[in-house]
Amino acid sequence: MPDAAASPLQNDAPAVPKAELIAALQQGMPAHALLWHEEDTTPYECDGLTAYRQRPLCVALPETEEQVQHVLRTCHRLRVPVVARGAGTGLSGGALPHRHGVTLSLARFNRILQVDPHSRTALVQAGVRNLAISEAAAPYGLYYAPDPSSQIACTIGGNVSENAGGVHCLKYGLTVHNVLRVRGYTIEGEPITLGSEALDAPGYDLLSLAIGSEGMLAVVMDVTVKLIPKPQLARCIMASFADVRQAGEAVANVIAAGIIPAGLEMMDKPMTAAVEDFVHAGYDLDAAAILLCESDGTPEEVEEEIGRMSEVLRAAGATAITVSQDEAERLRFWSGRKNAFPASGRISPDYMCMDSTIPRKRLADILLAIGEMEHKYGLRCCNVFHAGDGNLHPLILFDANDPDQLHRAELFGADIMETSVAMGGTVTGEHGVGVEKLNSMCVQFSPEENAQMFAVKHAFDPHGLLNPGKVIPTLQRCAEYGRMLVRGGRLPFPELERF
Amino acid sequence: MPDAAASPLQNDAPAVPKAELIAALQQGMPAHALLWHEEDTTPYECDGLTAYRQRPLCVALPETEEQVQHVLRTCHRLRVPVVARGAGTGLSGGALPHRHGVTLSLARFNRILQVDPHSRTALVQAGVRNLAISEAAAPYGLYYAPDPSSQIACTIGGNVSENAGGVHCLKYGLTVHNVLRVRGYTIEGEPITLGSEALDAPGYDLLSLAIGSEGMLAVVMDVTVKLIPKPQLARCIMASFADVRQAGEAVANVIAAGIIPAGLEMMDKPMTAAVEDFVHAGYDLDAAAILLCESDGTPEEVEEEIGRMSEVLRAAGATAITVSQDEAERLRFWSGRKNAFPASGRISPDYMCMDSTIPRKRLADILLAIGEMEHKYGLRCCNVFHAGDGNLHPLILFDANDPDQLHRAELFGADIMETSVAMGGTVTGEHGVGVEKLNSMCVQFSPEENAQMFAVKHAFDPHGLLNPGKVIPTLQRCAEYGRMLVRGGRLPFPELERF
Repeated sequence: MPDAAASPLQNDAPAVPKAELIAALQQGMPAHALLWHEEDTTPYECDGLTAYRQRPLCVALPETEEQVQHVLRTCHRLRVPVVARGAGTGLSGGALPHRHGVTLSLARFNRILQVDPHSRTALVQAGVRNLAISEAAAPYGLYYAPDPSSQIACTIGGNVSENAGGVHCLKYGLTVHNVLRVRGYTIEGEPITLGSEALDAPGYDLLSLAIGSEGMLAVVMDVTVKLIPKPQLARCIMASFADVRQAGEAVANVIAAGIIPAGLEMMDKPMTAAVEDFVHAGYDLDAAAILLCESDGTPEEVEEEIGRMSEVLRAAGATAITVSQDEAERLRFWSGRKNAFPASGRISPDYMCMDSTIPRKRLADILLAIGEMEHKYGLRCCNVFHAGDGNLHPLILFDANDPDQLHRAELFGADIMETSVAMGGTVTGEHGVGVEKLNSMCVQFSPEENAQMFAVKHAFDPHGLLNPGKVIPTLQRCAEYGRMLVRGGRLPFPELERF
Repeated sequence: MPDAAASPLQNDAPAVPKAELIAALQQGMPAHALLWHEEDTTPYECDGLTAYRQRPLCVALPETEEQVQHVLRTCHRLRVPVVARGAGTGLSGGALPHRHGVTLSLARFNRILQVDPHSRTALVQAGVRNLAISEAAAPYGLYYAPDPSSQIACTIGGNVSENAGGVHCLKYGLTVHNVLRVRGYTIEGEPITLGSEALDAPGYDLLSLAIGSEGMLAVVMDVTVKLIPKPQLARCIMASFADVRQAGEAVANVIAAGIIPAGLEMMDKPMTAAVEDFVHAGYDLDAAAILLCESDGTPEEVEEEIGRMSEVLRAAGATAITVSQDEAERLRFWSGRKNAFPASGRISPDYMCMDSTIPRKRLADILLAIGEMEHKYGLRCCNVFHAGDGNLHPLILFDANDPDQLHRAELFGADIMETSVAMGGTVTGEHGVGVEKLNSMCVQFSPEENAQMFAVKHAFDPHGLLNPGKVIPTLQRCAEYGRMLVRGGRLPFPELERF
């Protein structure tokens, strides 16, 4: 097994002086494609996880693939870390710069190269926005299914790196289920193609391995995605429940009845109250929890499925059921869900968004456990989540200016993650590990399992230069994390500045 | 990169004398669980690919997980190759024994540990037969979707190793889409769990990596599979076409119309003639090609979809369309398809079954190319395949007793694979690489890409002991293959005895 401690994030000294690196990079790209002054690199200091910030040594904005290869070859030769970056909307710090590294922005690779309605695929460059793919496919009645909340801004390259999901992934799958092929470069600047346009590929499934690898195995240049037909009709049920346990059980019952809704989301009372004030979605504010349960397909399919879903929800104890009567009402139902995160920002100075998963049948249990944690840590928590997937997004509300509240919020978050794992779940469903959940990987996996991941990383990137220090914790970190928990749960990242 | 030449298959000397190995294995398992006399190991000398045979040094039939660990630890310590084996129904020689190795049979791990109708999953041991899972789930109205033709006999452990498909995988996915978790052991005998019962898992997607890895990364002990509801109704269209190009285009048009049939299979005239004699499926023997196109779901969905499919097929030039009127007729339509391989055995002394894939839109092109190859090589070829997936199963008919026919059949097969790759496809869709398609991997992948696969293998199994010599060709083999093609295309496996 390669030595985990070889990760450059552990190494406090830069591999080469900044001037030498800049000079080497300038030999293969125009001056305007390199940023290294503090005022120019500051906009790149964090991604959607704003709690951690760090400026890179420099930012490269290549315009051609030759320039991408030049950056990679130069960094490989000089042993300089490389962090690829799309739109920077990630929520776990996956695109957080390395203080001694190059941030490789793929923003300029933003062309849709082909939309093929016959084979129902599109070939797009890494920097193309998620929603732009569906817009380009719309004239053919097609769309790209995975729809993270950030889909207006986030790029397909980032989606591939994080294996992004969205409210429709219960029925239509995550990024890994909707991508056929990825083309890119290794850290050596060598071309690599993973997957194919045809069914399956021989040998190991390196495509699935690369999807969700958070930029640690290769740099993505373009992606062949599947397109699917836009459903003729979609209707959404809003169902009210008098207690969260019943709502959790209703979710499990819908799935157990053999129905795969196009979306199955849950919000608890604190969440609907915060959201309703903000977007006036028409939610039932008396309910302890509401479910949004969508059906799409032909009008016949939708009618039949809405009927069956309503039956299951009523049998599970729904106190009210409202079915969207037109597209405007359906979009209004969803507007509340899609604005849940910003709505939380209105009721609390800060919030911490968790992303753990649990087997669907444990939904009611985890909700009750989170309720008890609110008392234990003396902090409020709103719950909004992809219920059908068992993917929780508890939003822990706190004031970061109060160090004690921050401390309790961190303990609360760690408790949710550990409880999720104990219930057979995982520490992250769709936001990735990045830097935020590095410690939680010590909870999720044994030292041997984390070492196995390091070995896979090593097979692609022997010097550990691609996005080092992310995703896989070192043995030393896990040991320290264990000691910290014993001491009372402070979760510092000594190598990062905390904001 | 690890040295490919380190593969034990290249090494002609056993790591330890047979007696020493047997003695070491006997220390951790009962005498009756070890076979090493020639008459006892001969039944294990090949799998479904009978052209290559080799007896192992010994066969281990452990009855407990401790015994599995003992076998692995012993072999790891003594540097002896291990080839895991399920039912031995594989078609590419993935379970072909290693002459200096241990064949590790998992036949005795044949218990269904749990069927959970609520979460719609089953936990089964590696040696459980594919069909037995659906039988156990049937009382709950559920079944396990992937249905390889060998499903009566093949095991879930083998399905995981080969990423098995089947006629329904167009709609319901391959094994990789229907497995949530795999538990097993590394070559060191260390426990390893890949995937989880919850959505996604953090870190690299090692579950997908292991599925289809042909026993080269770990030994599978048990598998958590998804179960899905049995459709209320299924009906099948048999459509006739006057030429194969039209039939190929009809397949592409069905998919382009946004329909995902429950099965979409194609047979050409030589194939239907052979089959009809054998099973009397009621096929149109005048048609140049027939399509079987199935719809399943609620009665309303099926009616609507059968209507739309019929329209597309008619517009594509179908000369006749017959829809199954009851379950008996539907099963009769499929009986011909499912018996295509044995039917070929009745019209030719030998046949070679190919498994290449092409992008769906190239279906007509590859069929025409195969037609030309029949003239070029002077051999007949029947075509039967998963048309919806673009997964071909051309059956090249020949007489193995005629060395020249065998030679031409091998050239014919290599030509099909190379043409498929040139059309954007792959050398294998669902049968795996094993030993049969080792040379074709040189066509599919660059030396760098094959080296990358070796590096991944090395990350799990640094000494190359798990199923060595399979799947990934050495640089030396690819170089020799290139030279052989120039010399006239003989494709020998010098290290194997050819039958």
